[in-house]
Amino acid sequence: MTNKLYDTSLSLLTDLYQVTMAYGYWKSGTAEKESVFNLYFRKNPFGGGFTVACGLANAIGYVSHFGFTKKDLRYLRSLTGSDGQPLFEEAFLDYLADLKLTVDIDAIPEGTVVFPNEPLVRVRGPILQCQLLETPLLNLINFETLIATKAARLRLVAEADTLLEFGLRRAQGVDGGVTASRAAYIGGCDATSNVLAGKHYDIPVRGTHAHSWVMSFESELDAFETYADVLPNNVTLLVDTYDTLQGVRNAIEAGKRLRERGYRLSGIRLDSGDLAYLSIEARKLLDAAGFTDTAIVASNDLDETIIASLKQQGAQITVWGVGTKLVTAYDQPALGGVYKLAALRNTDGSWDYKIKLSEQAIKTSTPGIQQVRRYSDERGFLADMIVNESDPDALSGKTVTMIDPLDFTKRRRFGTAQAFDDLLVPVFRAGDLVYSLPDIHAVRARVQDQLARLHPGVRRFVNPHTYPVGLENGLHELKTELILKLRGTRDAD
Amino acid sequence: MTNKLYDTSLSLLTDLYQVTMAYGYWKSGTAEKESVFNLYFRKNPFGGGFTVACGLANAIGYVSHFGFTKKDLRYLRSLTGSDGQPLFEEAFLDYLADLKLTVDIDAIPEGTVVFPNEPLVRVRGPILQCQLLETPLLNLINFETLIATKAARLRLVAEADTLLEFGLRRAQGVDGGVTASRAAYIGGCDATSNVLAGKHYDIPVRGTHAHSWVMSFESELDAFETYADVLPNNVTLLVDTYDTLQGVRNAIEAGKRLRERGYRLSGIRLDSGDLAYLSIEARKLLDAAGFTDTAIVASNDLDETIIASLKQQGAQITVWGVGTKLVTAYDQPALGGVYKLAALRNTDGSWDYKIKLSEQAIKTSTPGIQQVRRYSDERGFLADMIVNESDPDALSGKTVTMIDPLDFTKRRRFGTAQAFDDLLVPVFRAGDLVYSLPDIHAVRARVQDQLARLHPGVRRFVNPHTYPVGLENGLHELKTELILKLRGTRDAD
Repeated sequence: MTNKLYDTSLSLLTDLYQVTMAYGYWKSGTAEKESVFNLYFRKNPFGGGFTVACGLANAIGYVSHFGFTKKDLRYLRSLTGSDGQPLFEEAFLDYLADLKLTVDIDAIPEGTVVFPNEPLVRVRGPILQCQLLETPLLNLINFETLIATKAARLRLVAEADTLLEFGLRRAQGVDGGVTASRAAYIGGCDATSNVLAGKHYDIPVRGTHAHSWVMSFESELDAFETYADVLPNNVTLLVDTYDTLQGVRNAIEAGKRLRERGYRLSGIRLDSGDLAYLSIEARKLLDAAGFTDTAIVASNDLDETIIASLKQQGAQITVWGVGTKLVTAYDQPALGGVYKLAALRNTDGSWDYKIKLSEQAIKTSTPGIQQVRRYSDERGFLADMIVNESDPDALSGKTVTMIDPLDFTKRRRFGTAQAFDDLLVPVFRAGDLVYSLPDIHAVRARVQDQLARLHPGVRRFVNPHTYPVGLENGLHELKTELILKLRGTRDAD
Repeated sequence: MTNKLYDTSLSLLTDLYQVTMAYGYWKSGTAEKESVFNLYFRKNPFGGGFTVACGLANAIGYVSHFGFTKKDLRYLRSLTGSDGQPLFEEAFLDYLADLKLTVDIDAIPEGTVVFPNEPLVRVRGPILQCQLLETPLLNLINFETLIATKAARLRLVAEADTLLEFGLRRAQGVDGGVTASRAAYIGGCDATSNVLAGKHYDIPVRGTHAHSWVMSFESELDAFETYADVLPNNVTLLVDTYDTLQGVRNAIEAGKRLRERGYRLSGIRLDSGDLAYLSIEARKLLDAAGFTDTAIVASNDLDETIIASLKQQGAQITVWGVGTKLVTAYDQPALGGVYKLAALRNTDGSWDYKIKLSEQAIKTSTPGIQQVRRYSDERGFLADMIVNESDPDALSGKTVTMIDPLDFTKRRRFGTAQAFDDLLVPVFRAGDLVYSLPDIHAVRARVQDQLARLHPGVRRFVNPHTYPVGLENGLHELKTELILKLRGTRDAD
């Protein structure tokens, strides 16, 4: 029995087919073939117009500590095929035992606003290594990106209010909670209830008491007064255990005694009932008793839609506690990130570009050594253009044409004077970390800075404007050519 | 930087308010007051008629290793209130440093079919300790119970087919994946793609190759033949990289060579397109070539509804790969489990029963030291009755009356001859583990045995029959009395 829900070695945190493919590459002599994979998603989550990149720090942690332990190899040795014979031969396990990652990884920094089809992470190196990293990178980037995006949406509706993340009890497992708390803070929450996340990630923690505290006393007033006596510098009283407005009156009584002692009643919390009505009535009671700076905190299955509605109804709430709907991304609990092969190096050094065809244009992958070039002006972000770094013309600085991949007739031209940033930055070179991670507070600030540079139409929740993301003309032509070639080959079969 | 996404000490895996309440109990001299808390949920997930209890093994791991480390205490020491002063005094941190759990925990074994309002876990002991365990127990039990239930639903529609769990890349964090793989196996999956889960939990693992394998070769046929050469005892070929039915023809070519070498083509996999049509056509091609025992595996955002529909359309699929929709419980990503105080021991040894009122009857908690008594006959389970263990009359074996808590006029009587089992079993006594955990395969078998004992109407997905769960008459009367007393107190205020 162990309380570590998983092993400290996470190198087996992958799908078996990555290992069988690795064996295949090794066995057929192509393990070292240089390849390029892109990690991207195809649709903004929650029907929104933007996504917030997150998860890179944990992905870096994963890659930095990659390596098969003896126990890992013993387990792989035990696996058998349909004939009961071992799946892998010993020499392959020896190869894995000695394996050190030598990949180059480029990524878009955490806290950057990103859009469909843009590579968030690009992995380049021996195909065997790239393949082994597919599943863990998807797992780590998909989840934090999803939650940071959800939190950013909540921040947009909460405006200047305080936003607290309370989700641990309903999260999907231990780090479904701890990691969600990190991403929620980055996306715009002010604090978490999760003490371990607070400690591990340097996130402010908040919390006072639950219904059970009130129930364990003879009366609600006793419970409130005891709490205020004990923790006078952290008093937010939960008022809905029995009758909410009577609870507010009891909180005011406790608040008066607290005031006499030189402390203040920081807040009251509503956790059930009609939050609009109750907060308005509670505000009146508090104000009438002179507690004008006592905040009203609300919780109870809140999400961005409910908060927007409560605000529209004039609810007197300035602190929002959000749990389940945030940490599980309830209305869309997975980001459909994918990881696709985009190029393979030939023995002569040239690149063989790769795509995965699909009946749906949106699901056909894009080839090339991709970089994301974001054009902007003083008003904000204008458009993102995916360029092929291995095409010198595309990066030469001349006027370039960007083509909408879903409507080839939509084009934009950018002159040489147009300011841009290349979003993917070097993170690993030949397996060594070359990126210096910003601290979590800087990442959190970056999100707000990025959101401010988006057109309000892209930020809105209902029918958001589609932010322009296109392919540089040369890359568009390369992709078209590959599609036609593959379709042509197919007809000829 | 660390690749351990969380600390090995998980004692801070809790909400801050548990710690502030603990401080409050300690400071007000009530920390040792004996209390009873119940962990339960209010509604079966996914609109279903049943739930599968899961997560106890990891909860036991958590409780067994509970204890604050020096680093934990250093972190708690650093927390401050609104006045910048420390939240906790030193003597409290010393108390936590020495804290050993002495609780009694009773729980319903994993793999048991359970229903709303039944305590899955009952914690009894010093209120401070019970409170600290609330959040981690909810986190651990909520998630695995949710996923095991989802998997059980998939198993019901998959019938005798093979069910594979492929969800790691889209799971909510690392153990969102690893723990989900465990619960999915228990609920009825046959294997997982997740190698770490396979190793950690002794779950069969499965997997062959991805689209990238095919794309890395000059032709699909080359890719298939190389794979079959390298791993001849594990050949399931993914046929939809370019053109699915041409892919099937190429798989048949590779399969013929494999057959010549004395091996067999285990399967082909479809991952896109019209799975009903493509599987029927693929079956014809395979059968015509003599590959009648080659299985057709399907994946691509499957869930129980899509599988049922595909079967109804005559799809020739016998192996189902389920990912995102299973491991995130996509259509309901959280089980709303709660943990409520039900009794407090008075200084004279008598129990003071507790309820949390709510405007909605379903949200009013039930008092008492609860046990779940399941009546059954040779045809299966008849009804579950929640009894108060501290009421000797209720357990005396005489004819008892069970009352539906949401409709007091619905009653059932059970005579002394009626067979029953008490579902909650001792797990910890005075902090010591007294329960012997069954192995994961036994738990998985238990789920199927339990489901077979449920009435088909309870198992069905559309408008399932509500399995009868009631309160023993004495407990019903106790609850009613407490509600009236609290409402009365309220009126008198």
